[in-house]
Amino acid sequence: MTSRQTFDSTSAPRKSGSGGRAASASAKDTRPRRARSGRRPGDSGTREQILESALHLFADRGYARTTIRAIAEDAEVDPALVHHFFGNKEGVFDAAINSSFSVSASFDNMPGTRTDASEATWIAQTYFSFWEHESTRYAMTAIYRAGLADSATSDILRERIEASTKAWSQASGYRERPDATTRAALASGHLAGLALMRYVLQIQPLASMDFAEFIDWVVPALELRLSATLEPRRPHDTAAD
Amino acid sequence: MTSRQTFDSTSAPRKSGSGGRAASASAKDTRPRRARSGRRPGDSGTREQILESALHLFADRGYARTTIRAIAEDAEVDPALVHHFFGNKEGVFDAAINSSFSVSASFDNMPGTRTDASEATWIAQTYFSFWEHESTRYAMTAIYRAGLADSATSDILRERIEASTKAWSQASGYRERPDATTRAALASGHLAGLALMRYVLQIQPLASMDFAEFIDWVVPALELRLSATLEPRRPHDTAAD
Repeated sequence: MTSRQTFDSTSAPRKSGSGGRAASASAKDTRPRRARSGRRPGDSGTREQILESALHLFADRGYARTTIRAIAEDAEVDPALVHHFFGNKEGVFDAAINSSFSVSASFDNMPGTRTDASEATWIAQTYFSFWEHESTRYAMTAIYRAGLADSATSDILRERIEASTKAWSQASGYRERPDATTRAALASGHLAGLALMRYVLQIQPLASMDFAEFIDWVVPALELRLSATLEPRRPHDTAAD
Repeated sequence: MTSRQTFDSTSAPRKSGSGGRAASASAKDTRPRRARSGRRPGDSGTREQILESALHLFADRGYARTTIRAIAEDAEVDPALVHHFFGNKEGVFDAAINSSFSVSASFDNMPGTRTDASEATWIAQTYFSFWEHESTRYAMTAIYRAGLADSATSDILRERIEASTKAWSQASGYRERPDATTRAALASGHLAGLALMRYVLQIQPLASMDFAEFIDWVVPALELRLSATLEPRRPHDTAAD
């Protein structure tokens, strides 16, 4: 399980034995060693290799400091090929976060559970699985690091988050609740903020919790946020301000 | 209110007439025009000017693409002076986020309210005020963009968030609740995630909500998260997984 994997585009990442702890936020530390296969990849293999190299570099050194040249070097291809496939660095970023794996698509398989608790559990487990497992954590880190680092890439991250939010919101019974769009956006911010705390910034005690314990903390709050049980504070309460 | 302000280090930012909307995430767009005072600043004025220029540039173009030279140029000083004061770029970042204003310190003035609703309201309003007001939004954006962009600056952001979390947690009655540290960290992730969604990525409908409406949505969830009312999911519930 230490070689690079091609991500399944329709399901959450597989569990890997050593990937179950958020022991380190550094992409460099957690980057799986590459087992070079020796095959001469065709166009599609080369394209994937470039995107994977790009994500590793974006996660590790950030978007701005990653050059087309560095990506090409890591992928062992000519820089001209990177330009040929993707145009510029923003094109690489866009393609990388859209093709390597899809958080949104993983919600398509959401089972038709119709109780708040199990739906919130499914959403939290699916989303955080991408962060928890070594094989996709670096890509999630790359996406958020790059998307937040730079106003030019913020648009791409915004679209991804909106798509992902819509995907799980539509797949669940929450879409029928009052203020479903608002609740989904608030829940999405909640999830993303916790992921950044635990996996990127490694704030304690979140970073060292077991995955199951972390999910247990998140689910009840997510459930209330998405259901209609928790209403916004009523205007008359603002007198205390 | 369009000239740069020296931030009050002990209180939340003042309201400014035009700063009450999250109309644009771009630091460039919202950057107040500088009214050059014509005075020859002393050491302390120069130092402040450098830090303010640095935050504007970090917010606008990101940490990695901001050079010492660009900071010096914006502040109208010699680059050698920037090195003299702060050593390197990381030193500028560290000083900028620690001296310009203090989110943590603003919680020292937390009134001794002892009801969950008013404490959660205070925390949410104080924290989000720094994002909401034009005069400090760019600095908050800079801190998060830079802190998340780069593993080298993540440490500085982590320390800031931990300090800020501790400050409001200690200033409130929440410190006496079970699992206070865990709850505070979870709440902190919640707040930071929502700020990134609304102010940096501008995800709808959060970005276009009135500040009061946004706070009204946040407070009940924050209150539950911090109080002992909302417990983690019990182990026996995990059978559904």
